[in-house]
Amino acid sequence: MARNALYAQSGGVTPVINASAAAVIAAARAHPDQIGRVFAAKNGVLGVLAEELIDTACMSEADLAALAASPGGAFGSCRHKLRFGRELTRLFEVFAAHDIGYLFYNGGGDSADTCMKIAAHAEYLGYDLTAIHVPKTIDNDLPHSDCSPGFGSVAKYVGTSIREAGMDVASMCGSSTKVFIMEVMGRHTGWIAASAGLASGEGNLPPHLILLPEVTFNAATFLAAVEATIAREGYCVIVAAEGIKNAEGKFVAEAGGTDAFGHAQLGGVAPYLAQLIKTAQGHKCHWAVSDYLQRAARHMASKTDVDQAMAVGTAAVEFAMAGERGVMPTIVRSSDAPYAWTIGSVKLEEVANHEKHLPAEYIRADGFHITPAARSYFAPLIMGEAIPPYVNGLPAYPVWHFSSIEAKLEAFNTAG
Amino acid sequence: MARNALYAQSGGVTPVINASAAAVIAAARAHPDQIGRVFAAKNGVLGVLAEELIDTACMSEADLAALAASPGGAFGSCRHKLRFGRELTRLFEVFAAHDIGYLFYNGGGDSADTCMKIAAHAEYLGYDLTAIHVPKTIDNDLPHSDCSPGFGSVAKYVGTSIREAGMDVASMCGSSTKVFIMEVMGRHTGWIAASAGLASGEGNLPPHLILLPEVTFNAATFLAAVEATIAREGYCVIVAAEGIKNAEGKFVAEAGGTDAFGHAQLGGVAPYLAQLIKTAQGHKCHWAVSDYLQRAARHMASKTDVDQAMAVGTAAVEFAMAGERGVMPTIVRSSDAPYAWTIGSVKLEEVANHEKHLPAEYIRADGFHITPAARSYFAPLIMGEAIPPYVNGLPAYPVWHFSSIEAKLEAFNTAG
Repeated sequence: MARNALYAQSGGVTPVINASAAAVIAAARAHPDQIGRVFAAKNGVLGVLAEELIDTACMSEADLAALAASPGGAFGSCRHKLRFGRELTRLFEVFAAHDIGYLFYNGGGDSADTCMKIAAHAEYLGYDLTAIHVPKTIDNDLPHSDCSPGFGSVAKYVGTSIREAGMDVASMCGSSTKVFIMEVMGRHTGWIAASAGLASGEGNLPPHLILLPEVTFNAATFLAAVEATIAREGYCVIVAAEGIKNAEGKFVAEAGGTDAFGHAQLGGVAPYLAQLIKTAQGHKCHWAVSDYLQRAARHMASKTDVDQAMAVGTAAVEFAMAGERGVMPTIVRSSDAPYAWTIGSVKLEEVANHEKHLPAEYIRADGFHITPAARSYFAPLIMGEAIPPYVNGLPAYPVWHFSSIEAKLEAFNTAG
Repeated sequence: MARNALYAQSGGVTPVINASAAAVIAAARAHPDQIGRVFAAKNGVLGVLAEELIDTACMSEADLAALAASPGGAFGSCRHKLRFGRELTRLFEVFAAHDIGYLFYNGGGDSADTCMKIAAHAEYLGYDLTAIHVPKTIDNDLPHSDCSPGFGSVAKYVGTSIREAGMDVASMCGSSTKVFIMEVMGRHTGWIAASAGLASGEGNLPPHLILLPEVTFNAATFLAAVEATIAREGYCVIVAAEGIKNAEGKFVAEAGGTDAFGHAQLGGVAPYLAQLIKTAQGHKCHWAVSDYLQRAARHMASKTDVDQAMAVGTAAVEFAMAGERGVMPTIVRSSDAPYAWTIGSVKLEEVANHEKHLPAEYIRADGFHITPAARSYFAPLIMGEAIPPYVNGLPAYPVWHFSSIEAKLEAFNTAG
C-alpha cells in the first residue's frame, strides 16, 4: 500500500541542494506502487511543525530540470534545533495526518542528528517511518563520505575567483596593489580554503598563501611569508578561511577594534589581514569577502558535484524502496585519476555530530599551502561545468510560488 | 613605408581589456604595408619609459584567441601620471629608437588625457605619430560613448551574483539571515551598482535596495526602507556602491571607527551597513565585498561586451590606417530593442577628464532602485555569454612569459 513521502531541506543551502531535491522527487515518482504523494516541507522542519507542506505533483518534468539547475533552497530551509517533547510530538501528528511513510531529510551533520532522532522516535512510537538522510554541506565535513555534495561547486567557484583576481593583481603590481586577500567560508575546517590551492597548479601561481583554521595564525610568520612572496613574485595573493585562530584560540576575525558604534568589530578576516599588512609593511592591499556568493554560485557549479548531488538523492529513494532505514548515502571514491566513485551508505549514528577535518597530510609543512596529496583529492571534485540556462544575460533561475496543501490539524505555536 | 606600432594598457584592468589587445594586434597584422612590428609595452607607459617592449610577433593566432578570453592585463598595466619634462622626452626617445609610428593606448578617462598629451607633444616635436585611444573602464564613465568596454561584463557578474545570493537568503530568511549586502565598485558613479537592478526584473526580486553615490546616504531613510522591505518580502537584499556619501559629503565607508591598530577603519561600506542594521534593528546580516573578483570575472563576461571590446580595438587600427589621429572609437547605440550599435569616433579633448554620471532619469524617485529607462539602457549590455575554455575544472587562462626586445637606449630612472 503506497504511503506518502516528505522531503525537507535543512541548514545552510548549497549551489546543488536543489539538484538533490529534484532527484528525490523524480526517483519517488518512479515508485508509484510504494510512494503516493511526494511532499516538500516549506522551510524545512519548521514547515513540518507548521503543517506547511507543498505537493510536488504541481511540478512538471521541466520544472524539476529547472529546479536542479538553481541555487538556494527552493522549498526553503531553516536553522532550527528540533526540541524533544511537544515539537517531536507535533512532528509525528503531522506525519500521521498526511500518512508520511518516507522522510528524506537533506542536510549536514546537525541535520543527520535530527534525522536520526526522528527515526528513533518513530521506533519508540511504533510509527512506521523510513527516514533517510540526504547529505549536503559546502563545508565538506561530513564523515564517512569521500566528499559532501555542495562542496565541489564552492571549490570550483573559489578556485576560479582567485585565479581571475590573481591575474588582475599581477597586471598592476608594479605600480599599484601588491597584496590581495580573499576570505572564504570555513569556520571550523579549511576544506574550502585549501581547495583554492588547485588554482596554483603545480607552480607558483595564485593563491600564494592559504590560511587554514587547522593552522594557528601567527602574525609574524604570516607577514614574513607575505614579504618573501612579494620579493619572489612581485605580488602576493592570499586565501583566508574565516575561521583562522591565533595562539590563544581566538578567532582572528574577532581580534579587530571597535566600529563606529563602539562595538567590537564584526568579523572580516580579510580586512583585518589587509590592515595588518598595510600597517606593518605599507603595501597597498585589496580584499574580497565572497560570503554567500560562493555558496550560491550555481553558474559555476561543478558537473561532478551536480551529478553526486543527484546521485545521493536518487540513492536515498532506492535505499528506502529496499527497506533500509536510518542511513545516509555516501560518496565512495575508488580512484583519483581517472576519477571513479560509487554510492555507499552509512548508519546515521556514525554521521551525526562528527566533523571531518582537513587531514594533516593535505597541509604543506609551512602551513601556508596544500600538498600534492590534497591536489589529488580535490582535483576531480571541481571537474566539469554544469552551466545553467541564461535568459536576457542572466541565469534563468525559476521563481516558485508554491502554496501549501490544506492543513488538517490545529495551528501549532512553534515558539510555545 | 611601414612603421612600427605600440599597444599599451593603462589603469585598472577589466575582464575584456585583453580582447581589445587581441583585436588591435590582429588588425595591425592585417596592414603589413603600413605597420611593421607590433609591440606591446610591459606595464603600460612605465614599460615604455623603461624601454621594455614585447614583440607580439611571438604570439600565434591561437595565442591571440586565448588572450582575448583571459582577464587581467596580459602585458601589464600601471597607474602612473606621465610627467612633462624628462618623462615625455624619454617617451619620444623610445618611440624614435623603435620607429613607433602608431600608438594604441588602452585606458579610461585619465589615460585619454595622457594619450592626448602624447599626441600634442608629437605635433610640437614634429614627430610623426598617430595616437589613438582605445576605451576601457568598468566604471562606464567615459563620455561620448554609449557604454565603455569592460562595464557590461561587470554588470553581468554583479547581476548574476546578487540574483544567486538573493535566492540563498530567501531560502533561509524565516529563521536565519534577513539582510544581505553586496558592496560593488563605483567610487564616483553608480553605474555598476545600478546595473544590478537588472536582476530584479520587472518585479520585487533582489536586489531590493540599491545605494548609489549619486544619492546622499541617509541612515534613517535607509533603515526605514530596509524595515519596509523585510515587512513585505521577509528579507532584504542590498547592493551598495563603495562610493556612497553622507550629507556632509564624506564617504560612508570612512565613517567607521578604529581598528585593532587604532587607525581609522579601512573602507568597507558593506560591513558598515551590516553593523548599522544590526545595531538599530537587530536583524541578522551577511555581507560580501567582491572587489577585484567583479573586475576579473572573465568567466562571466558579456558576449556583447567582448564584441565591443574587440570592435574598438579593430576600429582603432582602422582609424589609424585612414589617417585619423587623436581620437577614440566610441560605441554608438541606435536601438535598445533589438539592440543595435555601431562604432563612432570622438576627439580626445572631448573625452579627457570628463566623467559621465548616472543620469537622474535612471534613478527611481525614492533613490533606492532604477527606472524602466535604466533597465532599457543596461539590458543589452549584459547579453550573451562568452564562456572561456575550461581545463581541469578551472578556466584555462594563458600564463605568459614575455621577454622584452633588446634595449637600444641607456637605462632610464623613472624615479629621477
